[in-house]
Amino acid sequence: MSGRLFGVGVGPGDPQLLTLKAASLIRQARHVAYMVNGEGGSMARTIAAGFIAEGAHEIAISMPMRAGPEAVGAAYDAAAARIAGVLDEGRDVVVLCEGDPLFYGSFIYLQARLAGTAAIEIVPGIASPMAGAAALGQPLCARDGTLTVLPATLAEPVLRERIAAADAAVIMKLGRNFAKLRRVLDELGLAEKAGFVERATWPDQRICRLADAPNEPSYFALVIVSKGEGAWT
Amino acid sequence: MSGRLFGVGVGPGDPQLLTLKAASLIRQARHVAYMVNGEGGSMARTIAAGFIAEGAHEIAISMPMRAGPEAVGAAYDAAAARIAGVLDEGRDVVVLCEGDPLFYGSFIYLQARLAGTAAIEIVPGIASPMAGAAALGQPLCARDGTLTVLPATLAEPVLRERIAAADAAVIMKLGRNFAKLRRVLDELGLAEKAGFVERATWPDQRICRLADAPNEPSYFALVIVSKGEGAWT
Repeated sequence: MSGRLFGVGVGPGDPQLLTLKAASLIRQARHVAYMVNGEGGSMARTIAAGFIAEGAHEIAISMPMRAGPEAVGAAYDAAAARIAGVLDEGRDVVVLCEGDPLFYGSFIYLQARLAGTAAIEIVPGIASPMAGAAALGQPLCARDGTLTVLPATLAEPVLRERIAAADAAVIMKLGRNFAKLRRVLDELGLAEKAGFVERATWPDQRICRLADAPNEPSYFALVIVSKGEGAWT
Repeated sequence: MSGRLFGVGVGPGDPQLLTLKAASLIRQARHVAYMVNGEGGSMARTIAAGFIAEGAHEIAISMPMRAGPEAVGAAYDAAAARIAGVLDEGRDVVVLCEGDPLFYGSFIYLQARLAGTAAIEIVPGIASPMAGAAALGQPLCARDGTLTVLPATLAEPVLRERIAAADAAVIMKLGRNFAKLRRVLDELGLAEKAGFVERATWPDQRICRLADAPNEPSYFALVIVSKGEGAWT
């Protein structure tokens, strides 16, 4: 009988923002997997480090940086095969996922490959828009309002059109796309209604108005644009 | 010196989906506030019940149901005044918020009224789109994809237009608006790409395909529409 696969959200950064369920599952896990970047770092492992049991087997999944879809797909295939090997021995595997597993998460690609192999349980995590809004004290949406989440990696005309059409917007994945986003928000007259958060809930969290944001923020920075006044306020 | 106001997300339903930080703050709280509906029930208090200390002072905030904006605004004014009375005595108040405090949350209206009175800290919570996606195993967004969250309370043409324009959509607040949403999804040819979740993570959680959903689901039901194929899958 196959082991179970758990996709566990570990939240945006502060280890106290793990859920009780996530903390409990990680503490009990004998096999813990996570993504590592090109430099060997793992944000998810860093967040969850205090909960990983001594002697747990760790499966570090290297993803090639700035690689094409084929190389990335092959890396996910290889990662899924490694995890399947453990599951096939009847052992559970907990995959640590920064933020929420199904919100811009790598777990989506592992799940797609392992869906036929094992029972899968997903534990939601605090996603960065909620963490960013909390840090700024800026509402995401209320009453009949809508919320659009979009990556700054989109082409500038698409970004402009989507933000123009939204009631409120969270723009993620800033990094080198920040100058483009600033132009769009200036053109739309929304710069004054935008809050900036970098590395929400980490010790080096930075929050400010858009005008005071650094020119080249982290990839893990986001902007929240609120257009409406909150009703009843 | 004024006490501090904490807006604490308690997540979608399962008490194990409170964050460690939320559980700790609630356990230590001497003054706990929450909204109650017309029948005297409080979803947030039900979720957090096991963490409220014996002898904690509870501030139950009654909100009029099906009332106009003026009556609702007056109820928030009165609630803020009650909480301010405690804060003015130098005591902290923890406000329990189902889901996330700033994502369609009542806390938005309390915060707006108390911002000048006290230091405010917001603890993000698991929001229902993430809990619903986890229950369905259905990704919310990936790579350059966008996500639109919208309430089914919107007028039918607006709902249609917004869902048509979205890459992926989460439609919330179903209840009596569900027939309207079904029509829209049928017209857009998206019914087959929609997953339905009612009371995500509660013991009576129900997940199914849209076609199998009940005609009058709970207000706390949502639909997730995924249009694209996940890349790399």
